[in-house]
Amino acid sequence: MYGLKLTVEYDGTNFHGWQIQANRPALRTVQGVMQERLRRLTGEELALVAASRTDAGVHARGQVVKLVTAVRIPVAKWPVAANSMLPPDMAVRAAEVVPEDFDPVRQARAKTYTYTIYNHPARSPLLHRYTWHVPYPLDVAAMHDAAALVAGTHDFSSFCAAGTAAVTRTRRVSDCRVTIDPPLVRLEITASGYLYHMVRIIAGTLGEVGRGKYPAAAMADILAARDRSVAGPTAPACGLCLERVEY
Amino acid sequence: MYGLKLTVEYDGTNFHGWQIQANRPALRTVQGVMQERLRRLTGEELALVAASRTDAGVHARGQVVKLVTAVRIPVAKWPVAANSMLPPDMAVRAAEVVPEDFDPVRQARAKTYTYTIYNHPARSPLLHRYTWHVPYPLDVAAMHDAAALVAGTHDFSSFCAAGTAAVTRTRRVSDCRVTIDPPLVRLEITASGYLYHMVRIIAGTLGEVGRGKYPAAAMADILAARDRSVAGPTAPACGLCLERVEY
Repeated sequence: MYGLKLTVEYDGTNFHGWQIQANRPALRTVQGVMQERLRRLTGEELALVAASRTDAGVHARGQVVKLVTAVRIPVAKWPVAANSMLPPDMAVRAAEVVPEDFDPVRQARAKTYTYTIYNHPARSPLLHRYTWHVPYPLDVAAMHDAAALVAGTHDFSSFCAAGTAAVTRTRRVSDCRVTIDPPLVRLEITASGYLYHMVRIIAGTLGEVGRGKYPAAAMADILAARDRSVAGPTAPACGLCLERVEY
Repeated sequence: MYGLKLTVEYDGTNFHGWQIQANRPALRTVQGVMQERLRRLTGEELALVAASRTDAGVHARGQVVKLVTAVRIPVAKWPVAANSMLPPDMAVRAAEVVPEDFDPVRQARAKTYTYTIYNHPARSPLLHRYTWHVPYPLDVAAMHDAAALVAGTHDFSSFCAAGTAAVTRTRRVSDCRVTIDPPLVRLEITASGYLYHMVRIIAGTLGEVGRGKYPAAAMADILAARDRSVAGPTAPACGLCLERVEY
């Protein structure tokens, strides 16, 4: 038996998120499809654990998935062997042997997400799967300033979906920045951990700053309020992508 | 009555090309879907004519579609009005009034296509709809040199699908270049007209040059041979995109 750490990419459009829904087993999930396909490859019942349980519609370029197996596949052959079994919207990009007790969730030092806004009056069929379409003009300089206020250690209660059970809502955001590559506006955020919907609520709030509903400086007040109702809306899942997890 | 020139973007993945297939009316085509949706908008039976009859799976960022209508929609409102009727994988990006006898095919001065190769050992779920996945290393410098030999006025019989009825196979390519943005390798080509599958056969031949099957200079011999069988394979449709049409 050995532990295996897979770096996994997927197009989240046609998945109901990472996690198997025990009460709705017919839903197509990343975990469900991957466990079933890798079971055929290895002949083993596998229990896959992901660094991040991405929501329905969220994409990943660098999700980390851990499993324990006894199958005799050389680690260098794992990506090709796995990809021969996986559907087109999911692929293993890299594989690495790790200790059997490697914990992809607790041992993660930092996770980086991007959130991409497509800012143009007309919608784009070639971008709509991977971006949030914002048709009104955005003040990107104000969004940039507001994003800088998110970096640091804060209580992120204002950026946490109502009803979340997290005991502590303090998280350390080591980097939060907005960059522009017209017509795309991209938020990149790195933190050791996140609250439920945190990146999407930050993106939705930056969208409100961009259209002038709040000044950039209001980001500090929104954080200080520790109240979900003062932040902006939850931006759509399709703009979000888990880029990488560092250990 | 007035002529209308629409600039149209679509994701070709789920279309059987531009043109309605008279003998297979159930196939989902860009023309078929667009005529039906705009018929609902205008109440008119419309005959749409496209600058280029793109093949199944080919994308467009700047297809030009012409129609003649009597409907009283101000031209500035046309994109939003049309997009409210069109499915997510198709959108009108711009609209312009043109003479009723405007001919989007004959009056086109130049059409630009891109062909995108994703060059990496592992396949990418986030790129697979829009690229040709080439897993072996490519000599991009050789591809660049070979592409330069395509520019100019030539008989392109070697780059024309067998069985094409075109009377003359001479076309003028005003620009043909390969650029790299790792892991993407992109061919951009501009010509006044094309033969059937011309860009995809050029892309497939450049792929052979890239993997060392032919030297770059062989491109001149392949052109001179005027024989489809000496050129490379037809690259997959999904990597091709009609970028723009100039008048």
